[in-house]
Amino acid sequence: MTADTTIRATDPSSGRTLEPHRETAIAELPAIAGEAAAAFADERMRDADRRVAALRGAAARLRADGESLRALFQRESGLPAGRAEGELERTCFQLEALVDVVAAGAHLEPIVDRADPAARPAPRPDLRRMLVPIGPVAVFGASNFPLAFGVAGGDTAAALAAGCPVVVKGHPAQPGINAAVAGHVAAAVAEAGLPAGAFAHVQGASAELGAALVRAEPIAAVAFTGSTAGGRALFDVAAGRERPIPVFAEMGSVNPAVVTVGALRARGGAIADAFVAAITGAAGQLCTKPGVVLVPAGEEGDRWCADVAARLAAAEPLVMLTERMRDALAAQLAELSARDDVDPLTPPAAPSGPGFRVSAAAFQTSASALASAKELREERFGPFALLARYGSDEQLETAVAAFDGQLATALHIDVASEPERARRLTELLAARCGRVVYDGFPTGVAVTWAMQHGGPYPSTTAAGETSVGMTATRRFMRPVCWQGAPAELLPAALRDENPRGLWRRVDGRLTDAAIAPPASAG
Amino acid sequence: MTADTTIRATDPSSGRTLEPHRETAIAELPAIAGEAAAAFADERMRDADRRVAALRGAAARLRADGESLRALFQRESGLPAGRAEGELERTCFQLEALVDVVAAGAHLEPIVDRADPAARPAPRPDLRRMLVPIGPVAVFGASNFPLAFGVAGGDTAAALAAGCPVVVKGHPAQPGINAAVAGHVAAAVAEAGLPAGAFAHVQGASAELGAALVRAEPIAAVAFTGSTAGGRALFDVAAGRERPIPVFAEMGSVNPAVVTVGALRARGGAIADAFVAAITGAAGQLCTKPGVVLVPAGEEGDRWCADVAARLAAAEPLVMLTERMRDALAAQLAELSARDDVDPLTPPAAPSGPGFRVSAAAFQTSASALASAKELREERFGPFALLARYGSDEQLETAVAAFDGQLATALHIDVASEPERARRLTELLAARCGRVVYDGFPTGVAVTWAMQHGGPYPSTTAAGETSVGMTATRRFMRPVCWQGAPAELLPAALRDENPRGLWRRVDGRLTDAAIAPPASAG
Repeated sequence: MTADTTIRATDPSSGRTLEPHRETAIAELPAIAGEAAAAFADERMRDADRRVAALRGAAARLRADGESLRALFQRESGLPAGRAEGELERTCFQLEALVDVVAAGAHLEPIVDRADPAARPAPRPDLRRMLVPIGPVAVFGASNFPLAFGVAGGDTAAALAAGCPVVVKGHPAQPGINAAVAGHVAAAVAEAGLPAGAFAHVQGASAELGAALVRAEPIAAVAFTGSTAGGRALFDVAAGRERPIPVFAEMGSVNPAVVTVGALRARGGAIADAFVAAITGAAGQLCTKPGVVLVPAGEEGDRWCADVAARLAAAEPLVMLTERMRDALAAQLAELSARDDVDPLTPPAAPSGPGFRVSAAAFQTSASALASAKELREERFGPFALLARYGSDEQLETAVAAFDGQLATALHIDVASEPERARRLTELLAARCGRVVYDGFPTGVAVTWAMQHGGPYPSTTAAGETSVGMTATRRFMRPVCWQGAPAELLPAALRDENPRGLWRRVDGRLTDAAIAPPASAG
Repeated sequence: MTADTTIRATDPSSGRTLEPHRETAIAELPAIAGEAAAAFADERMRDADRRVAALRGAAARLRADGESLRALFQRESGLPAGRAEGELERTCFQLEALVDVVAAGAHLEPIVDRADPAARPAPRPDLRRMLVPIGPVAVFGASNFPLAFGVAGGDTAAALAAGCPVVVKGHPAQPGINAAVAGHVAAAVAEAGLPAGAFAHVQGASAELGAALVRAEPIAAVAFTGSTAGGRALFDVAAGRERPIPVFAEMGSVNPAVVTVGALRARGGAIADAFVAAITGAAGQLCTKPGVVLVPAGEEGDRWCADVAARLAAAEPLVMLTERMRDALAAQLAELSARDDVDPLTPPAAPSGPGFRVSAAAFQTSASALASAKELREERFGPFALLARYGSDEQLETAVAAFDGQLATALHIDVASEPERARRLTELLAARCGRVVYDGFPTGVAVTWAMQHGGPYPSTTAAGETSVGMTATRRFMRPVCWQGAPAELLPAALRDENPRGLWRRVDGRLTDAAIAPPASAG
């Protein structure tokens, strides 16, 4: 028998080591995953009312414990008070928004095709289909959203809403907030009368623990938010299983932005404001940070770049989440500085003060260098942007077309004076991303029906799905069709009476009506 | 420069070698995939009217050439005339059914969330999302449905409907029908004004050709119907790419069926009829064949098994698709015969006659052997079934629970006299399959909205999707969200006017109405 190991976080603002938290041993995972499997087989897990109560209860508990959670949040993340408050509210909202989806059965996508002996090309039996939960889900929390993409974050909320037990591995940079949030979710799950295995939390800093969780036999899907290397490693483990499972990994993204000369003329100052806020907010530690911006060559572009550089240089030093992240950014900027095709726009700075502080920075390159050098199109996490200057539409379009899959892109353009350019750029941008933002930057990710937070590889491993918004449950569900089923064996959502008044596709048409009983033969 | 290589099929009814067809060289694939990529970037590919015309045109051409196609079909597959006719009609229907989906924009899943400055937890921008095509799709045709899952089969139809160029590899057992169908699709694509790269057909018998197609850089997704080994091999290639791509492989399935004592009493003869038809139809070469049936121990079960065995023994020998399939089945049955826990119910038979003929066969085992021996739960492709006898509900449920993921299952039960048994079995079956069929067998797969042809691994590599029915396009699409976009830059489906009257989710509610312009301030 070995002694427990522990993980200890560091307060990124002070550099102080925080109290130890027990690490989960790999040997514990089979039992934890087994409990999740038992919960999945338990009828109570399919009771939407219990799941609604658990989601509501978790939100209520998080709000009630707000003061303590916000303090923990700041201490372990170094993020400011306003962010702690906003993110806690967002986390609660995500849990509650899915309550409405589950209550309306909108996640079930019910479809009814009644029997039709005259159907072409062959008589049709009665077919009724809806989505059912896929099984226990392993969730990996992100460090840059300790709450909203953490233990009770969007992935956990979506999986529980879908009816899937969750085993969540909190990010090891924030063990304290993970443990506190996990306590609230577990209590809400118990109070709602869900089986205990519906939710479990594991902690640990080793990649082996994460890989072992993905390998655990009962795990049916994986949700991850973090680095490309981390997400790809889990994807490879999942694909290599005897029974492969899907990995919904939201990974790196540069989120290139385009600024045209028309936009600069119309509102260059406002764009510079918004851009600097997008680079420095949360110390640039957002998966939707516009890491590259394409700016026209020439005087107007020069002025805009100088304006941005001056604002960044004047910004207070920013605290990064971890020492590793700070060091990674420093190494990346050192590498960039050494290149012939890149020039710094901001002066070198070595910020003083305790903890993991960095200064915001911007470098400049040409659109042609951006198009030809893959390294210039890589994500650099932190308060940094690369400004790439283009001399022609062709240079601009070639640079945009060189980008791989992205979560988001942004277009600042004056549509009235540049209509054809706007059309072409929209097409190029939409072809390689999950979201195109106009006259703004993608750093805000609203939790709504139409949100898409996802994109082609390498921004995610599953371009067809989203990890934010009301359709995020779709990742954890699969369709089942009941053919010729006696009514009493059908899920309520598929019965003629439509007791909850769900929107369903019946005989090809969307309706929320019940299906009328067949007229009795006279 | 090497000489062209050729593949030659064999007429399975006569054993005669048929005329040679040119094999595609691996070295040709980059150019073919490159043309598909060029087509994908071409605006014409996003014109729904052109795609509708191509789908309709392909169906019309296939129908017009029906006589010749049916003859080719029979000659290369050994399947009977009725099947040739039915499958050709089904293939045309699949192409035409998707026309209606595309015309109604139902594959786009449009969602509009209008800007709301008062939204919680933060002001909401205007967000509009719909599905867009994912990119060029590689399709692998199946030998057991030379038309319906072939070159112009369901996968090709769904990918083209979605807006994706298709590179299809026809099954090498039927090169003649592949080439003929490919000619019609290519002509329809050209007549509809789609770019030439929208459709390409490659032929070849080597696994290397298939793997190279999956590796081809522009390919964005793979659809496959065939064996577990074949599907998994392509899945592994796709997951190992630098940019992994999704593989929608519909693979092996045993489709276990359950017959209860109540059902035997109420309609044992009819169930035997249907079961024998399901085993012998298409010589049992269906992915939905009920390969295992759980039958009660005792006299009634004995009589039913004897009845089934007698009917199978009396059936005419059946022609299998290929020599390899015939030999594989023979080897599997020899292995089963050697087991202590399995007994033959039908006499050994070595059918005479030319070609690849086999006799229908059934073996018997116990439900407990089925539950404990994985080999008994494997798919055996061809006119064969394993009848597993259970002595109690516990034995039955343990055996059902031992099965991995399945495309379909079947339940023959007398709900009125066995309500609790029906409920428990429904739950167990639905938990491991994509479709549960009542009082029937799953061999018919209707092309409708509610159909689910898919299931947990190993029946497919993507339990969340279907390869048959109106929602089959979802595999080849991904969401894109336009945030704050000027109306003129939005796809028509997302504009306020809703010019085609699509059903959309607007501010959370489904509607087919246009969005009213904002009232002007008085």
